[in-house]
Amino acid sequence: MKYATPAPASVSLADPVLAPRVEANRTATIPACLKHFEKEHCIDALKLKWKKGDKWYPHIFWDSDVAKVVEGMARELARRPDPALAKELDRVAKLIVSAQQPDGYLNTHFTLVEPEKRWTNLHDWHELYCAGHLMEAAAAHFEATGERFFLDAMRRYADLIAKTFGRRRGQKRGYPGHEEIELALCRLARATGERKYLDLAHYFVDERGRAPNYYVEKEGWQSWRLEYLQAHKPPREQREAVGHAVRWAYLCCGMVDAGDAKPDVGLLEAAVAMWKNATKRRMLVTGGIGTARDGEAFERDFKLDNLTAYAESCAAIGLALLSRRLHDLTGGARGIDVFERALYNGIPSGVSLSGDRFFYQNPLASNADSPYARERQAWFYCSCCPTNFARFWPQAAQLCWALAPGEVRLCIPAASELKLDNGLRIVVEGKYPYDGAVKIRFAKGAAAAAVPFALSLRIPDWCETFSVAVNGKRAAAKAKDGWVSLKRAWKPGDEVALDLAMPVRVLRANDSVAADAGCIALQRGPLVYALESVDNGPGLHRLSIPAKQDFKLVAAKGLPRGTVAIAGTAFETTRPGEELYSDAAPRTRRRRFVAIPYALWQNRGPAEMQVWTREA
Amino acid sequence: MKYATPAPASVSLADPVLAPRVEANRTATIPACLKHFEKEHCIDALKLKWKKGDKWYPHIFWDSDVAKVVEGMARELARRPDPALAKELDRVAKLIVSAQQPDGYLNTHFTLVEPEKRWTNLHDWHELYCAGHLMEAAAAHFEATGERFFLDAMRRYADLIAKTFGRRRGQKRGYPGHEEIELALCRLARATGERKYLDLAHYFVDERGRAPNYYVEKEGWQSWRLEYLQAHKPPREQREAVGHAVRWAYLCCGMVDAGDAKPDVGLLEAAVAMWKNATKRRMLVTGGIGTARDGEAFERDFKLDNLTAYAESCAAIGLALLSRRLHDLTGGARGIDVFERALYNGIPSGVSLSGDRFFYQNPLASNADSPYARERQAWFYCSCCPTNFARFWPQAAQLCWALAPGEVRLCIPAASELKLDNGLRIVVEGKYPYDGAVKIRFAKGAAAAAVPFALSLRIPDWCETFSVAVNGKRAAAKAKDGWVSLKRAWKPGDEVALDLAMPVRVLRANDSVAADAGCIALQRGPLVYALESVDNGPGLHRLSIPAKQDFKLVAAKGLPRGTVAIAGTAFETTRPGEELYSDAAPRTRRRRFVAIPYALWQNRGPAEMQVWTREA
Repeated sequence: MKYATPAPASVSLADPVLAPRVEANRTATIPACLKHFEKEHCIDALKLKWKKGDKWYPHIFWDSDVAKVVEGMARELARRPDPALAKELDRVAKLIVSAQQPDGYLNTHFTLVEPEKRWTNLHDWHELYCAGHLMEAAAAHFEATGERFFLDAMRRYADLIAKTFGRRRGQKRGYPGHEEIELALCRLARATGERKYLDLAHYFVDERGRAPNYYVEKEGWQSWRLEYLQAHKPPREQREAVGHAVRWAYLCCGMVDAGDAKPDVGLLEAAVAMWKNATKRRMLVTGGIGTARDGEAFERDFKLDNLTAYAESCAAIGLALLSRRLHDLTGGARGIDVFERALYNGIPSGVSLSGDRFFYQNPLASNADSPYARERQAWFYCSCCPTNFARFWPQAAQLCWALAPGEVRLCIPAASELKLDNGLRIVVEGKYPYDGAVKIRFAKGAAAAAVPFALSLRIPDWCETFSVAVNGKRAAAKAKDGWVSLKRAWKPGDEVALDLAMPVRVLRANDSVAADAGCIALQRGPLVYALESVDNGPGLHRLSIPAKQDFKLVAAKGLPRGTVAIAGTAFETTRPGEELYSDAAPRTRRRRFVAIPYALWQNRGPAEMQVWTREA
Repeated sequence: MKYATPAPASVSLADPVLAPRVEANRTATIPACLKHFEKEHCIDALKLKWKKGDKWYPHIFWDSDVAKVVEGMARELARRPDPALAKELDRVAKLIVSAQQPDGYLNTHFTLVEPEKRWTNLHDWHELYCAGHLMEAAAAHFEATGERFFLDAMRRYADLIAKTFGRRRGQKRGYPGHEEIELALCRLARATGERKYLDLAHYFVDERGRAPNYYVEKEGWQSWRLEYLQAHKPPREQREAVGHAVRWAYLCCGMVDAGDAKPDVGLLEAAVAMWKNATKRRMLVTGGIGTARDGEAFERDFKLDNLTAYAESCAAIGLALLSRRLHDLTGGARGIDVFERALYNGIPSGVSLSGDRFFYQNPLASNADSPYARERQAWFYCSCCPTNFARFWPQAAQLCWALAPGEVRLCIPAASELKLDNGLRIVVEGKYPYDGAVKIRFAKGAAAAAVPFALSLRIPDWCETFSVAVNGKRAAAKAKDGWVSLKRAWKPGDEVALDLAMPVRVLRANDSVAADAGCIALQRGPLVYALESVDNGPGLHRLSIPAKQDFKLVAAKGLPRGTVAIAGTAFETTRPGEELYSDAAPRTRRRRFVAIPYALWQNRGPAEMQVWTREA
């Protein structure tokens, strides 16, 4: 990778949007998940307490849920010391390890309920997926605590998996139905320095989708359903984003990690091509992907319906993590553009501001016809989404920055602070994403000398006009490939002013998107806006908005102080009469509308919502 | 009933729309159905040829398919003598009767495949439904041929059913999962003069949905699924149209028939209330009902999506037959208005002009995103729709008229002829529905004297301006409740000119219909129009149409001579650039559009289609 992410302890956030999310995750989401684990018997499962006849049984994906929260706790602990959190993390990590079998196997469902079925249904059951999340958790635990017991346990598990799967005689030539272990093995390889885990990751990616197909031949899976799990052909031959969107995103992450760590250009090229297809033709304006409810899957190019858009929270997280990787691989700004779109829209919409209520689906409209829950839920039968937030938010501060030798990149100019190894601190101030004026101060860290390096500022895809000033002097900065690079010997006291113009943008979808024909969406900065009935009354479908008008920035009622809403003129069209169909002339009245950031909808009670509104 | 339908032999059609459909049904649909019955083993099933190990087995609804085609053949034969058809009808009717068991039972599936399961799963399996269609077929056969063998066989079957079901000790208190037998028993009662069949019809209607629920208690059906088959409460207590639309329509027909024949105002009131709910809030502009694919069912008020509208062909036929019954019950014109909407739009769309290709679903838009087949199919695994056409079209001529003592009603002013018992013939001339100028001539029939009676002309709901002239003299005719009644002693040579103004109407849906917000549909006379890509090129979603313009009537390319298309000005909006989302200004160009009658779409190859277009 060309770019790296700074260490968790070296960064902190102070912005009005991300920082409160990270804090709510720490104080509400993680504790809520742990409480649900107790109540739903996930903890009992790890204690191997289940016995025949119990009213509950460990579900095939429970271990992954616990693992993701442990990963989140470890990532949170790595940000700053917290003895209580450290104790709780230690307890749960030890609990996980205590469930490991003598041969290294660790899966509560197949240990307790169906031991005879171990590794027999890779396409549907989640053994290797759970194993992957456990490995990610173990790596994070090791990085946060320096303790090896969890990591070592997962090494033993990985060794068992390496013995079980492969192309040698007596091994199963299978691979996971739900990808995840590929990227996790790469992480395990980094944490342990063991290349054999990288080899196993390559095996899983390479064996996938080969003919004769393992799932069809060995597990009786229907060949027409192979696209669902990206096993219709080998990943390196794939160019379209198809099937279950979370699986797809994790697969592509694994391809990038494996293809970078043990160079394989074919894997990288395929991942980039699929990502381009996904983001240029199959992504919602919020960064949501996987629009089909059936299979939580991608649909054909430009099929992007709003009310029925599935857009699982996990899929937006997956796309963000993949997009960031693609930036790190090449340095291109588009990876951060997509990352930012998901970061500020399709990801945060999945969790309430309070941190303890979650959307599994993130459609772009919601009303009485919605096929999905219209209020966030406390928990789900399959709670992959809440637990994914638990591990995502602690990374938010790190992901605002990227590092390369001689270069510091400010990817997301949210108010934050970065301690550099070179002894400087960089402090970013401002109200981004509500305001495009960003001040970047250099401050004294461990040392006070001038240090020569490039500070690169991202000029987002949504920004047409910007200015940069260094120490009060306007810099003739030109963006190259989305970055303005300021090379000099930076010293404490230096100050850079970045000003990203943030007019309200009136977006139209590509004219091949039938669902958005005749409609506009509003975006300001990285934030996509939505109309909610809380502000506008019910019957949002009756509204239309003129594209050319002076939109006003106003305070949003009932949302956190500082939240910027957009107000303007709309038209409300009604048709007189009770007839179902009539040629009565419609009546149109001028009225005001208010739009709030999409990510914040349904934080003021149940409501109608829509992102795309008819253009007047 | 206040109004009756004239005898089949007393009417004929000569109009440009219905007459060719009836003829295609006779020459193509009925023969095609019979061919499929041979090929698909439905005939072998009636010969009781199935044995264990065969690659086919008689499906639970096969008997109903054959019965409906037999009903169609009988209705066709009743229109005019046809020795070849009579022979074929006799052959198939005898084949059906030959499958009857000694105790009167007649069902090929439960006779051959699962004899032990007779009457054990009323909610899902179709025994009583099949029995109903067999009874309808037998009554039609008797009326067409005067022969009693089929009718007598069905009496024996009905007697067995009456013995099996009821409230007496030892009887099952069940009722059909798919309604149909209720209306069929009323018909059997009329054909045989036996009131006991009417009693059984009342039993089935009355027992339905009573607590404790039979399906839940005796068959383990889930109580939340009772609405699907209108068994969530007794039909007389129901006021909303819910569940499977075909089941619903047949139930309401049965309620009207039973409630009228053995007076029960409660049943009639409930049927009328449900019909009002269905037609005022849950009906597509084409007369299609049952918009949900899931369960082929009604959705909530005003949920009328276009691309996904299921609108089964059978449901439109069911709604038409119910609406006609409601006219016959009260004489109100609205029953005929709804009947006509389905007759010219939602019903004929289900069958190709050639008569041998069928749509099961009749959505109001179709493109690459359509969940349904985009071309009509030759046959279906469940072929209720083709076989329903087979029996519907032969009734078309009769259903244009209604008779009461001292009154003749011209319900649908299509070119046709009616021989009256009073010795006169009434000849309707014109190009309706393409032209609103209708000439009604009185001609000599069996007698030539003047006969006093009222000729009632319907003024359709779509018609705002009309004129009536009798023998060249403008009549100061006022429509009362949708009818202009001309009372006089009519004699051969008398002539009435009815002129229904037929401007192109620009329809808007009730503003509670979110799917049609900002959209218009075009209707002229009873015909709803649609844009097809054959005339307009692909990408129909890019078009918008100004409501105020001079629409032109033009000839339709590749459709039958005389078909009237609508042409006018549209705007095509494109957005420059390949970006999925951008603020590039859209480009709009003025262009011509052509709309054809919705019923005729997909008769010129696969195509995009839409009824509702954005208003420019």
